[in-house]
Amino acid sequence: MVRVKAFAPASVANVACGFDVFGFALEQPGDVVEILLNDTGEITIKEITGDQGLLPRHVDENTCSVAMRQFLKSLNLSTGVEISLHKQLPLGSGMGSSAASAVAALVAINHAVQNPLTRKQLLPFAVEAERIACGTAHADNVAPSLLGGFVLIRDKATLDIISIPVPEELHAVVVHPHIEIRTSDARQAMKKMISIDDAIKQWGNAAALIAGMMKSDYELIGRSLEDVVAEPVRSIFIPGYQQVKQAALQAGALGCSISGSGPSLFALCKNQEVAKHTAHSMTEAFNRIGLTSDQFISTINHEGAKILND
Amino acid sequence: MVRVKAFAPASVANVACGFDVFGFALEQPGDVVEILLNDTGEITIKEITGDQGLLPRHVDENTCSVAMRQFLKSLNLSTGVEISLHKQLPLGSGMGSSAASAVAALVAINHAVQNPLTRKQLLPFAVEAERIACGTAHADNVAPSLLGGFVLIRDKATLDIISIPVPEELHAVVVHPHIEIRTSDARQAMKKMISIDDAIKQWGNAAALIAGMMKSDYELIGRSLEDVVAEPVRSIFIPGYQQVKQAALQAGALGCSISGSGPSLFALCKNQEVAKHTAHSMTEAFNRIGLTSDQFISTINHEGAKILND
Repeated sequence: MVRVKAFAPASVANVACGFDVFGFALEQPGDVVEILLNDTGEITIKEITGDQGLLPRHVDENTCSVAMRQFLKSLNLSTGVEISLHKQLPLGSGMGSSAASAVAALVAINHAVQNPLTRKQLLPFAVEAERIACGTAHADNVAPSLLGGFVLIRDKATLDIISIPVPEELHAVVVHPHIEIRTSDARQAMKKMISIDDAIKQWGNAAALIAGMMKSDYELIGRSLEDVVAEPVRSIFIPGYQQVKQAALQAGALGCSISGSGPSLFALCKNQEVAKHTAHSMTEAFNRIGLTSDQFISTINHEGAKILND
Repeated sequence: MVRVKAFAPASVANVACGFDVFGFALEQPGDVVEILLNDTGEITIKEITGDQGLLPRHVDENTCSVAMRQFLKSLNLSTGVEISLHKQLPLGSGMGSSAASAVAALVAINHAVQNPLTRKQLLPFAVEAERIACGTAHADNVAPSLLGGFVLIRDKATLDIISIPVPEELHAVVVHPHIEIRTSDARQAMKKMISIDDAIKQWGNAAALIAGMMKSDYELIGRSLEDVVAEPVRSIFIPGYQQVKQAALQAGALGCSISGSGPSLFALCKNQEVAKHTAHSMTEAFNRIGLTSDQFISTINHEGAKILND
């Protein structure tokens, strides 16, 4: 009887100027998926913990089972799988919750059947699962959760993924206020057309953020963490957004913006000390408007998803 | 009597995916400006050669004198200057012709008065001169012509210019067909609004081109040299555009697109041999539709503008 447990980390998508193309993985938190192969030929969901009963239990709707079924089908495998999902990521937080579940499931099943596919080859199945969860097939959470590091999705049609080196001491802060935004709602708020002037600003910043990361130029990273496309429309959904962002910048963060589609905010900081100070200031700013929140401080996770036992 | 001669190189702006934010300098061709200081307190244009009489001779309209006057005014200098401009760059070619003249003039006058300003400090005067020549104050030709190298203009309001390292062996080909497009016309053809999907593709490619350059990853450079914003509307003005681009790619070029606002096309190649073959194929393709052209092959010019005598 093959039993495998896998972990996949939370991730921050968009990263201010890189709407739909940038994402990075955190060390913690993350989701854990445990699977048990059997000879029923069926995929079943045994249990889901940590979701307060909110996630779909039906195999056609759950990201873990959807991803896993696509994987098994593509390899013509008829094994049965019993899935247990232990959610450690808050739902609807903008931290790549659905992505982490799908990725953990895929890494687990791939390992259980002797790793026929590489990490990158697992990506399309995870993207397909995102389509089920969010309504669009975006890769900016699944790619970093699966592969680790800071990634650029040059082209989502071909899943051309590029790993971007980042400064070793770079720390991320994510603060999750206790309100929920559905990714599909946040995406609908996006405009279908943008002005060429805004677009130019955005790709100037996107290119500059890559240069800043690869040059370990913290000031350039800071100047590039500007979003003139998604932030203006999405920040409206997040109470206290401007105050929390200002608190992060005043605490010394290089930049601060929305994590994914929110409501979490992320900040990048040049070291752990500034990160701690930033996390504290952001949490305090949410407190002042009566919102409780969770905070996470992490270096960039370069490993991505991993197997927890063997 | 102070006499100074300066050279400023041609440049390729936009570089496919970096509309208004990327540009690089060529070794040749370039414009030469010779100045002679005098005590008249006036700026005069003594002669312009190589322009077939097409450039404005009036000091309020010529990019050299406009740039120089702004420079002198900002430093409260009342010296007179007699300007000779030797155009070696074809006008209206999309190779940064007006930028090269303004930059050569600025580098010459700065040198003549003992270099009170750094190269980067000269930039605003050159941008202002571009406004006179092209109707908009863009920096994607003046910045590379002045500073050399491959540059990213992260923000044109603050002129935040970032130098991007490129692979040593990278060669550029520029082929200039003998037709003229006015920059202001080409800019008017641009749409004021673009779809978010096109914008995402463009900043994915812009970010990836920077990563490709800094990693010396030729395949990534090639995949990133795609323009879904300017090329579709501007290539219409260039007879034989698709055939010439295909000829470049078939000859082994990493990518090929419009140089600035055209009509010149540029290609990037991984070494000199491929560049020569590419230039030949592109020229032949223009020949087949009855257009003569000039071709230029160059590594990236890292020096930028320079003083020719002392």
